[in-house]
Amino acid sequence: MAEAPVFDTVAIVGLGLIGSSIARAARVFGAARRIVALDASPQALARVRELGIADEASGDYETLRSADFVVFCVPVGASGAVACDIAPYLKPGAIVSDVGSVKGAVVAQAAPHLPAGVHFIPAHPIAGTEFSGPDAGFATLFENRWCILTPPDGADDAALGRLVAFWRRIGARVEVMSAEHHDRVLTLTSHLPHLIAYTIVGTADDFGDETRSEVIKFSASGFRDFTRIAASDPTMWRDIFLHNRDAVLEMLARFNADLASLQGMIEKGDGDGLFEFFTRTRAIRRSIVEQGQDTAAADFGRGGDKA
Amino acid sequence: MAEAPVFDTVAIVGLGLIGSSIARAARVFGAARRIVALDASPQALARVRELGIADEASGDYETLRSADFVVFCVPVGASGAVACDIAPYLKPGAIVSDVGSVKGAVVAQAAPHLPAGVHFIPAHPIAGTEFSGPDAGFATLFENRWCILTPPDGADDAALGRLVAFWRRIGARVEVMSAEHHDRVLTLTSHLPHLIAYTIVGTADDFGDETRSEVIKFSASGFRDFTRIAASDPTMWRDIFLHNRDAVLEMLARFNADLASLQGMIEKGDGDGLFEFFTRTRAIRRSIVEQGQDTAAADFGRGGDKA
Repeated sequence: MAEAPVFDTVAIVGLGLIGSSIARAARVFGAARRIVALDASPQALARVRELGIADEASGDYETLRSADFVVFCVPVGASGAVACDIAPYLKPGAIVSDVGSVKGAVVAQAAPHLPAGVHFIPAHPIAGTEFSGPDAGFATLFENRWCILTPPDGADDAALGRLVAFWRRIGARVEVMSAEHHDRVLTLTSHLPHLIAYTIVGTADDFGDETRSEVIKFSASGFRDFTRIAASDPTMWRDIFLHNRDAVLEMLARFNADLASLQGMIEKGDGDGLFEFFTRTRAIRRSIVEQGQDTAAADFGRGGDKA
Repeated sequence: MAEAPVFDTVAIVGLGLIGSSIARAARVFGAARRIVALDASPQALARVRELGIADEASGDYETLRSADFVVFCVPVGASGAVACDIAPYLKPGAIVSDVGSVKGAVVAQAAPHLPAGVHFIPAHPIAGTEFSGPDAGFATLFENRWCILTPPDGADDAALGRLVAFWRRIGARVEVMSAEHHDRVLTLTSHLPHLIAYTIVGTADDFGDETRSEVIKFSASGFRDFTRIAASDPTMWRDIFLHNRDAVLEMLARFNADLASLQGMIEKGDGDGLFEFFTRTRAIRRSIVEQGQDTAAADFGRGGDKA
């Protein structure tokens, strides 16, 4: 016998890669009895209807009134506006959440708009591809991936428990921490790497046409990984850097100091220093493979959604 | 009927990831009638014998006398010493090549040692994984990957033609250019990205144990790609940076300037500037996918050896 749904009606606001994956996963894994899709874009709604990934696709916030779980899946910078828009239609007792890559700024933007009678518990599923839009999503995107929940002080335990159950049902592993701690860890694991990847791909693009086409042609080794990271959604990443500015700038200062140190070793021809540094970073990679966050497969199968 | 082998006897000096892959590929694709393996390490030779990937595995340079193609697959910094060691045993008319990621420095180190009667044509197959040693190799490593040949001025056309035929036979796509041009393009596509990846993984490692373990735990997004790059062979990369120093330092200066510009946008909250930059880098990624150097598959299947 199938497990009972975690929620009766889930409303997803914003049907991009993440929102449309939640819709698909909620249905496939039976996490909700009914799935409602809301989007400001008529094109996105039309596509959601064609794909048949929601029971109802609407641009009318009235449809929120029946939802016991509302999750907005929009760029971090739009969190405040969306919270303001949806607030009047939220059912008392509803759980409200998001999927943003920055948590402190989302809380600061969204929380003031939300009525007292709802449970706002931000979330961040660490999953994604470099593609965007309702067609890019798939039901197994969250399988074995972490989803970090950042309940505010005094959050309702029952509401937190249901949110944990929802994410587990659609395949994620759940971790709970403060918004501030989340932002610090993610700056290192995600925001700074993306900034660096954007930079280096941009540096290559500044060269003349001939060099640029050769750079693309021979991109197999190293550069290709950067281009994949640097192909992520521009709006999403603009908002991450604007809304997690302090943590990003702090880590960037450390990175610049470390890079200057390696640069100095190259200038001086300090082979022992380089060897020691490269040996240390190799050990970190092994820890990641051992912790099951990636495979050691020689085909570089990154398992972006299989971990 | 099978195609005739390109060479009668191929001697591979250094049976690491690349050397052992050449041995396997030469046999699988019938590129040589006989494969001889030479290595300074008795352990590596014993392993080559156990794996059965060569017709003969020896630590004695005398075995080179029968080879019409000798390829040394050693870290760039060892090229001079190996060229010096093998020189007395090379058959007149033999083709000598390498697989190093830097070409100018290899030519400078190796060419003076080689006798006039052999054809020295450096090569760089752009293929690899982050693993090392004879066990890490596989026959399809070069399939659809570029191999860049950098014949010196006045190189023998027939010898060049046979080397091209060998690499094509084992699956590679071949491109010919000058050593200097090679080093410039590869600095951008490979050397600088590796340096950056090493730096950022090192930056993360400088944090306390608690943060470090969380960084590893939540490494899915962005950071994981860097750790894979930063797990490459430390000796190989030490030598690349020492032997391609000027080009690396030049590109690094450009990278630092570009990163400072992005940093300035974040400090000033210049969302339009960030969006424009991120949109440009996304377009580069699309060019790479269109040129068949990677797939657009949503599972991030990097196809490191399938391109």
